[in-house]
Amino acid sequence: MSQEEFQLIKRYFVSDTEGDDVLLGIGDDAAVVNSSGPLAVATDTLVSGIHFPVHMPPDAIGYRSLAVNLSDLGAMGAEPRWCTLALAIPDPQESWLEAFSAGLFELAKLHGVSLVGGDLTRGPLTVTVHLLGPINPDRMLTRSGGKVGDDLYVTGSLGDSAAGLEFFSKNTHEIGPHHAALIARFLKPTPRVEEGRVLSSLASAAIDISDGLLADLGHICEASDCGAVVDVGRIPLSPDLAALFPKEAAQAHALGGGDDYELCFTAAPAQAEAVECAMNKVGTAVQSIGRLVAGEGVTCHRDGETFSPPNRGYVHFSS
Amino acid sequence: MSQEEFQLIKRYFVSDTEGDDVLLGIGDDAAVVNSSGPLAVATDTLVSGIHFPVHMPPDAIGYRSLAVNLSDLGAMGAEPRWCTLALAIPDPQESWLEAFSAGLFELAKLHGVSLVGGDLTRGPLTVTVHLLGPINPDRMLTRSGGKVGDDLYVTGSLGDSAAGLEFFSKNTHEIGPHHAALIARFLKPTPRVEEGRVLSSLASAAIDISDGLLADLGHICEASDCGAVVDVGRIPLSPDLAALFPKEAAQAHALGGGDDYELCFTAAPAQAEAVECAMNKVGTAVQSIGRLVAGEGVTCHRDGETFSPPNRGYVHFSS
Repeated sequence: MSQEEFQLIKRYFVSDTEGDDVLLGIGDDAAVVNSSGPLAVATDTLVSGIHFPVHMPPDAIGYRSLAVNLSDLGAMGAEPRWCTLALAIPDPQESWLEAFSAGLFELAKLHGVSLVGGDLTRGPLTVTVHLLGPINPDRMLTRSGGKVGDDLYVTGSLGDSAAGLEFFSKNTHEIGPHHAALIARFLKPTPRVEEGRVLSSLASAAIDISDGLLADLGHICEASDCGAVVDVGRIPLSPDLAALFPKEAAQAHALGGGDDYELCFTAAPAQAEAVECAMNKVGTAVQSIGRLVAGEGVTCHRDGETFSPPNRGYVHFSS
Repeated sequence: MSQEEFQLIKRYFVSDTEGDDVLLGIGDDAAVVNSSGPLAVATDTLVSGIHFPVHMPPDAIGYRSLAVNLSDLGAMGAEPRWCTLALAIPDPQESWLEAFSAGLFELAKLHGVSLVGGDLTRGPLTVTVHLLGPINPDRMLTRSGGKVGDDLYVTGSLGDSAAGLEFFSKNTHEIGPHHAALIARFLKPTPRVEEGRVLSSLASAAIDISDGLLADLGHICEASDCGAVVDVGRIPLSPDLAALFPKEAAQAHALGGGDDYELCFTAAPAQAEAVECAMNKVGTAVQSIGRLVAGEGVTCHRDGETFSPPNRGYVHFSS
């Protein structure tokens, strides 16, 4: 690590809000954290032009780099605690780093996460955050715990981020408050961390919706060795999305659009009341949208009839 | 994660050698490891064309991506246990992934490290490994523990990797056994993990030599608030390096060349015998090359006189 790299790290990434559970923070060959039991471990990489538009504001990139990992730990029912940041950047402009760091720390502080180390290097803009946090292995939420007959739920509302990305990328001048709300949701999605922790004793399986409901629910089906039926009319849509799109277009965004970072989870029917009550307490909307069934894959129903949605979600390596 | 991405991960990155301490491995939103106490945490990113030549063989890239992190944990005296891999790649060729994975697992198996998760995505070739392992906080090796009067040591020999890179990049046809040995050292450096663990009760400060002796020793000096004097004639050079370079050129490689991944450490003079005995047991050469002094910065002596080496080490963001 060069002096210059070290100075940039010191200026923008050493925070005064490191927890007492950090025994050695940024600046040595490795960090040391005072962990005391089983840990959940997640890593997600964001590549400029692939996972976010090249003109995305740096504070939103910093925010998102942690949000996607918080969302992963949330979907496990874990408690995020420590992260590292590996940042490759073509040219380390101070104004860029300052905004990026502000976005990252905005979310880190909100969730009590300490940035304990990382790597800053020259390269095509690529951000990898690695997140650690305690988890109770007897209550961890996997993708594989779903049972035929379980109810299927989602938190919040779906489709906003995909629609927001559309408006953000178009860079249109006709931006009203609904457009702005959707763009804001795309730029700074809310990871469902507290929700995951609360659900860890109630849900049978869970995943966070990063690639779209159909794609991610498909992972639960595959891992749980079952199928799912989704009643498309029950999928929660935000007032902003509903105001700007005809119903079917809004539903298409909700089924196939990624980056919402809501939780999709399943629970035994006997848990229905407990699920609703728990999510009420956290203050997050929850909606049952279908159930797990024998078979495989996700089937969509609309107005009582089966239909094939136009977009099955984000596929990273498709040509 | 798409089906295709998932299939590639399953084929090349799910190993049957996962330890019993992995409660949930690759394939869910996060991995869960059965940690039970303080952990050392390191992250290093390798960018193609920046940290390694674009024509580096993929098995050497896979090997190196873990080696650099093992080296960091070694320099802390920690015990590497679990890693994740974030791999951005422009085009996921199966032959490339197979070789990359073989190189990574070669080293992972040697050190008993389980690959527990990660992220595979399209993007400019960038490899970030994150490595975790138990550490005794009362015996961790930092950069800041050096005291004026401490002896200064390095393990193994220095300069081979820098010279090896030179020959590898030239792609010359006149490759003899010495050239081949240096190129091999560059392609597959040996991280000093066992050495670091043994030294954790003997050394006062340590760092791994990734950017060159002068640069990395400079970090010890700064963190320990002192200076260092290096007797350049005592720096250990391999027979291969000595055979191919005049003495001064070999020493220049040893002082400024990166990527050797030897340990540079300090210890109180009273520990000299214990250090030698411990490293003998591990079977790794160790050489005292100077001492820590009052003041700041690294001063080089050769044949009793002060001199300024031509190359101060790798600077990531220099223009």
